[in-house]
Amino acid sequence: MPSPSKQSNNVITCKAAVAWGAGEPLVMEDVEVSAPLPGEIRIKVVCTSLCRSDISAWESQAIFPRIFGHEASGIVESIGEGVDEFKEGDHVLTVFTGECKTCRQCMSVSSFSEYTVVHSGCAVKVSSVAPLEKICLLSCGAAAGLGAAWNVADISKGSNVVIFGLGTVGLSVAQGAKLREASKIIGVDINPEKCQKAKAFGITEFINPTDCNEPIQEVIKRITNGGADYSFECIGDTGMVTTALQSCSDGCGMTVTLGVPKVKPEIAAHYGLFLTGKTLKGSLFGGWKPKSDLSSLVDMYMKKEIQIDELITHNMPFEDINKAFNLMQEGKCLRCVIHLPN
Amino acid sequence: MPSPSKQSNNVITCKAAVAWGAGEPLVMEDVEVSAPLPGEIRIKVVCTSLCRSDISAWESQAIFPRIFGHEASGIVESIGEGVDEFKEGDHVLTVFTGECKTCRQCMSVSSFSEYTVVHSGCAVKVSSVAPLEKICLLSCGAAAGLGAAWNVADISKGSNVVIFGLGTVGLSVAQGAKLREASKIIGVDINPEKCQKAKAFGITEFINPTDCNEPIQEVIKRITNGGADYSFECIGDTGMVTTALQSCSDGCGMTVTLGVPKVKPEIAAHYGLFLTGKTLKGSLFGGWKPKSDLSSLVDMYMKKEIQIDELITHNMPFEDINKAFNLMQEGKCLRCVIHLPN
Repeated sequence: MPSPSKQSNNVITCKAAVAWGAGEPLVMEDVEVSAPLPGEIRIKVVCTSLCRSDISAWESQAIFPRIFGHEASGIVESIGEGVDEFKEGDHVLTVFTGECKTCRQCMSVSSFSEYTVVHSGCAVKVSSVAPLEKICLLSCGAAAGLGAAWNVADISKGSNVVIFGLGTVGLSVAQGAKLREASKIIGVDINPEKCQKAKAFGITEFINPTDCNEPIQEVIKRITNGGADYSFECIGDTGMVTTALQSCSDGCGMTVTLGVPKVKPEIAAHYGLFLTGKTLKGSLFGGWKPKSDLSSLVDMYMKKEIQIDELITHNMPFEDINKAFNLMQEGKCLRCVIHLPN
Repeated sequence: MPSPSKQSNNVITCKAAVAWGAGEPLVMEDVEVSAPLPGEIRIKVVCTSLCRSDISAWESQAIFPRIFGHEASGIVESIGEGVDEFKEGDHVLTVFTGECKTCRQCMSVSSFSEYTVVHSGCAVKVSSVAPLEKICLLSCGAAAGLGAAWNVADISKGSNVVIFGLGTVGLSVAQGAKLREASKIIGVDINPEKCQKAKAFGITEFINPTDCNEPIQEVIKRITNGGADYSFECIGDTGMVTTALQSCSDGCGMTVTLGVPKVKPEIAAHYGLFLTGKTLKGSLFGGWKPKSDLSSLVDMYMKKEIQIDELITHNMPFEDINKAFNLMQEGKCLRCVIHLPN
């Protein structure tokens, strides 16, 4: 018999990192986290990592004050009425794209806080022995990249792959391609420091566009004898989506776009790129169904079938969260894992 | 033993409809058709039908004089050296996208002529009992639509489909969707006369945007409870590609673009449309491998598994080819089949 679940009516006062304006340092403040309503759960956040899309939202978001953060692990503190999927003490990952089965999309996670309340559709129960300070990466970035390679593109053995942008998402795409035994896995990044880590994740050729005398798509077409089978845009630059389309092969080439653009929101591409049969695919959380698939990814990590530890470049306490924002803005980190107080 | 094939060195003088300038009436002239070179075949064209892309090329093409036409049926008149796939008297369809196995793309058909020479990769042998005056449609438009539904989109049973533009290609997509047992097949066209024929090809709901008080994508989202599973752009309007993307469902919606744009060549779409996981796919000749697949389509037609006769709205002799151009420009026909002299 499972132990009876704790239902809570109390409001918790705790620390949260509040954004008061676009690009302004977050302010550590006391906030009140209400008890979970029917269908909701309250989570004690253990670790949260900083995703590039948090930065983009923080830089541009019109609605303030706001508590960002969506890539997180935690422990269920209490549950709302009618929730039978979770109980107090369950280890969970938050998911920004819920699978509540009642609405098509639910995005309601604010993990830059000691406690947070989410719809039960926006959390997934995971193994209680998996290290929460690592697997928080599977809540968004690392899973998004692996899923883009496996579910969205469905990379086939022996194919040629090119990845634009070698952050956490791009490197996870590379890992996915490597595990599918892709032949060439070409990584493109303007930061030369990415080269070494890229190799560890399966990149077979590293190209820095600033070292090239010709358009990058021409370089890629030459290396791949006409164009890659799959190209991935992991930067968040709509102009680069066009380059990615130009870099992939006529007839069967596929471009997957994963980045959230920071500047120009319109993707533009000459129809001729499509006339030859190319595909442009968006990828929402790597095509995973979180409830069904995410705990399996955690299990794969526990069996060392996938690597995520190497994506964590920094660990820091909650009060240093602004340092993480600075590192990410300056491109000096992959993932900063932020540890909330016990 | 097959009969020995006829190799020919003679030049044939015959009639061709020559385009001398953008949008100018074609001029019936004597042209010299040279003997087939090694790897080529010379075809006596029996029927050629007029495809919308002939009109687009004729309206805009920079290089004149030129002989257009690519949707055609005919009989092999002679073969070049080294051709063992065809022999004199074989019935063939021309294919604008060749499968010669030596170049990635070969486009070399000029069927508005009594005789034409093509690379052997740009013709497909078909059953000698199939009526050449009908199956010429399978050389491009009808096959492109069926293939877009079956090979490119791979429409599943019970799904919702929306088709923008109900010409030969759009109606063939509808037929493909119907044979896949799609649930709703919504046709969108500004020409109210298309409605009746559309129903015969499987369209379950006809929408004329000029009758709507709200954006067409909103109408479609309402009918399909959130967006179609598949949307097809069969007009040749890059703006409509965006509308087609907006009309399909978040998460799993797919837009297939088949049209060749007449005006604005850039497809533009807000990245948010892709962020939710949508797919935009180009379709080159419906994803068919002509050599492998086209004769099977002809066989399906002979077994009455697919219908193409109803797409033929006009038949006319070669000398009336300019009438066909006028009808197509005015949107008053589906396919005009042009019969060349015996």
